[in-house]
Amino acid sequence: MYEELRKAVCDANVELQKQNLVIYSFGNVSGIDRSAGVVAIKPSGVTYDELAPDKIVLLDLDGNIIEGALKPSSDTPTHLELYRNFETIGGICHAHPTGATMWAQACSEIPCFGTTGADYFYGPIPVTEVMTDDEIRSDYELNTGRVIVRRFAGMDPMKTPAVLVANHGPFTWAKTAAGAVESMVVLEQIATMALGTITINPEQGPISKALQDKHYLRKHGKNAYYGQF
Amino acid sequence: MYEELRKAVCDANVELQKQNLVIYSFGNVSGIDRSAGVVAIKPSGVTYDELAPDKIVLLDLDGNIIEGALKPSSDTPTHLELYRNFETIGGICHAHPTGATMWAQACSEIPCFGTTGADYFYGPIPVTEVMTDDEIRSDYELNTGRVIVRRFAGMDPMKTPAVLVANHGPFTWAKTAAGAVESMVVLEQIATMALGTITINPEQGPISKALQDKHYLRKHGKNAYYGQF
Amino acid sequence: MYEELRKAVCDANVELQKQNLVIYSFGNVSGIDRSAGVVAIKPSGVTYDELAPDKIVLLDLDGNIIEGALKPSSDTPTHLELYRNFETIGGICHAHPTGATMWAQACSEIPCFGTTGADYFYGPIPVTEVMTDDEIRSDYELNTGRVIVRRFAGMDPMKTPAVLVANHGPFTWAKTAAGAVESMVVLEQIATMALGTITINPEQGPISKALQDKHYLRKHGKNAYYGQF
Amino acid sequence: MYEELRKAVCDANVELQKQNLVIYSFGNVSGIDRSAGVVAIKPSGVTYDELAPDKIVLLDLDGNIIEGALKPSSDTPTHLELYRNFETIGGICHAHPTGATMWAQACSEIPCFGTTGADYFYGPIPVTEVMTDDEIRSDYELNTGRVIVRRFAGMDPMKTPAVLVANHGPFTWAKTAAGAVESMVVLEQIATMALGTITINPEQGPISKALQDKHYLRKHGKNAYYGQF
Repeated sequence: MYEELRKAVCDANVELQKQNLVIYSFGNVSGIDRSAGVVAIKPSGVTYDELAPDKIVLLDLDGNIIEGALKPSSDTPTHLELYRNFETIGGICHAHPTGATMWAQACSEIPCFGTTGADYFYGPIPVTEVMTDDEIRSDYELNTGRVIVRRFAGMDPMKTPAVLVANHGPFTWAKTAAGAVESMVVLEQIATMALGTITINPEQGPISKALQDKHYLRKHGKNAYYGQF
Repeated sequence: MYEELRKAVCDANVELQKQNLVIYSFGNVSGIDRSAGVVAIKPSGVTYDELAPDKIVLLDLDGNIIEGALKPSSDTPTHLELYRNFETIGGICHAHPTGATMWAQACSEIPCFGTTGADYFYGPIPVTEVMTDDEIRSDYELNTGRVIVRRFAGMDPMKTPAVLVANHGPFTWAKTAAGAVESMVVLEQIATMALGTITINPEQGPISKALQDKHYLRKHGKNAYYGQF
Repeated sequence: MYEELRKAVCDANVELQKQNLVIYSFGNVSGIDRSAGVVAIKPSGVTYDELAPDKIVLLDLDGNIIEGALKPSSDTPTHLELYRNFETIGGICHAHPTGATMWAQACSEIPCFGTTGADYFYGPIPVTEVMTDDEIRSDYELNTGRVIVRRFAGMDPMKTPAVLVANHGPFTWAKTAAGAVESMVVLEQIATMALGTITINPEQGPISKALQDKHYLRKHGKNAYYGQF
Repeated sequence: MYEELRKAVCDANVELQKQNLVIYSFGNVSGIDRSAGVVAIKPSGVTYDELAPDKIVLLDLDGNIIEGALKPSSDTPTHLELYRNFETIGGICHAHPTGATMWAQACSEIPCFGTTGADYFYGPIPVTEVMTDDEIRSDYELNTGRVIVRRFAGMDPMKTPAVLVANHGPFTWAKTAAGAVESMVVLEQIATMALGTITINPEQGPISKALQDKHYLRKHGKNAYYGQF
């Protein structure tokens, strides 16, 4: 069952390693079949070399295991909370890549310094609040999802498909599991470049709204003109 | 038609990826046959793995498509504006490599701190003005070309075959498409080293005019003595 | 004799190179058979390409060679001092990787800025005192072990399986030789990210005790829930 | 004639590329047969992929070509000046690697911050004076050698087999061509780490003389005890 979803999620997890976004098993990708309400996610602590579609764990949106001999990723409650609240997303990626994690650890959003990521991310990459001791001590992974959702109040998650969890690292998402990894690759690139930009000019501000609009809208919506279609 | 030009432009685009200057399809290279007035450029949104000479798009200098089933790069109007105004150049490269884009995002020129790039670039790598909202909202890609041309008023583009577009990234050029990519590789190297240099010594100034002249002229002009010829 | 131990130690040394933690022969890994009191360690100055299980040197805890035609690593007295004092450890790794050595050279501990290493290291990565001239001039390698042991007075070495020797570089350990290399890989990653974090925000403090506890305890002890078991 | 020397110099040049110390043809290695007074060096502007022992150029110490159809490296007069003045050296390497060139461009010596390079380099890596306009305008490459020799007045070049030419980049040397490349690899590593160290702690001073002596002497001289011998 759900062979296509399993394979897509397995491939996306393996891609994390190919893109040098992870060491050991420090990352996980999931995907959802919205019509069936089924989430597929990486098993916990398994390396990408050992991964295969039949090791992917299937759950419902409440976290009940539908199929899978292995335990799902310990970050599963975070993924589920995002799927429950961001109804337009179809895949989620979590990792600790060098550049984006630097910013998450600094509890700082990444300003939109250039056009490189502006086709993917509208505006800065937001950072969550620091979690309280109570939020950490019980239901930690669920609460990680909640601080993300809280940060996106009034925002469209598909226009900003990435967040930095303060003291921790990034989560990205997209319409598919593969797309969520692509968001992570682009996030990592802009995080790395942003560090250089503030080193060269600590006073540098974000690009204008006109430039953000231009780049985002040339790739999204009815007037998009980037790519072949 | 124009098989050699197509192949040269295709190869140069693939080289962008080999040289780690791009992620996904974030870059494009073009070449021109000056006698025929024909420009060859990468199709929009196509990855380098999928590229082949017959996918390269051919246009005239006004942007009319001569041959090609695919849409040309969305940056085509920028390339055309440069070919129309810099009559000695034969190839153009655009990408978002980490080092050079850091500087473009900081809206800062790259001072000439050493001899590494002095055989390629005479003096600093210039940065354009920040584009106005009007320039961005209509004819954005054409206006990107215009701010570059404006920045080069009174300059010889072949002595400084690179520019940083503020808030965006670098464009480089040369006599050929392959040469434009080589300019980008060297630019990326000097951009990366310049960041380290200002971290070590924020007061560091550029090298002397005598040293710039020496290195540029040992590789260019009638008294050149570098290489085999 | 001790074929399994030799092979494990040989493999762990080779892994150092695969993980890009060393240039030339700048690193060494050892392992111990506690029941026999036998330590296996890399021979001195031998490259990882030349290494084989039968070149691994066997010693007792006093440094007497049990078997081995080659001289053991010049850092052997440091390893032995750690084995004698940290009775729960089974493997030790020493190298000069870029990120961790930057911090060791700055004589600065690495604050715990995020959750990335919190499953491995409880709290900051400590740095030793600068060694005195007397400690350097005689029994240098033994005294290197002593300053490490002194730094860990009152600490559990298994909860913080890494140290930075001031002016020098890191040592890591674990239950096995392979685990010691894994500790080094993770240490290198968090050292690299910590440098970026303080560049973005020089005032950044460590994560809360609640978050350190959460991550460390979800992987260690009776309430651990990370991975498959 | 001099087949062994040609091959050693060819291999050492190829190694430059394998070690990621160069882009394009931005580096060169030479070797000398002291008994014959013959210097072998890379031809100018030839890439490392095209290189072969029979393309290596042979010269005498005055720069007269003994054998070779190609023009020697444009940096040849620098190499010859070093061989004439540093009588104990047998190989020289010049390149523009990222880390060491950052420091050369900042016109700053690299302090001895740690033990990593202390087995190779006794004390800091010196930087030359900035060359005068007169020194640049005539006999530039010869004068590059002269400023290096001037900087080493009263110093033993074998105890500090590296120098940074201000505004330019590093030269390294050793008893052989291969050794000169090894010196460059180690220099690049310590240059990269030193940048991180001053970022973490701008006030960091060099290691003690006792520690420099200890590391240098454990690898050199009659009391050396590192490696197999």
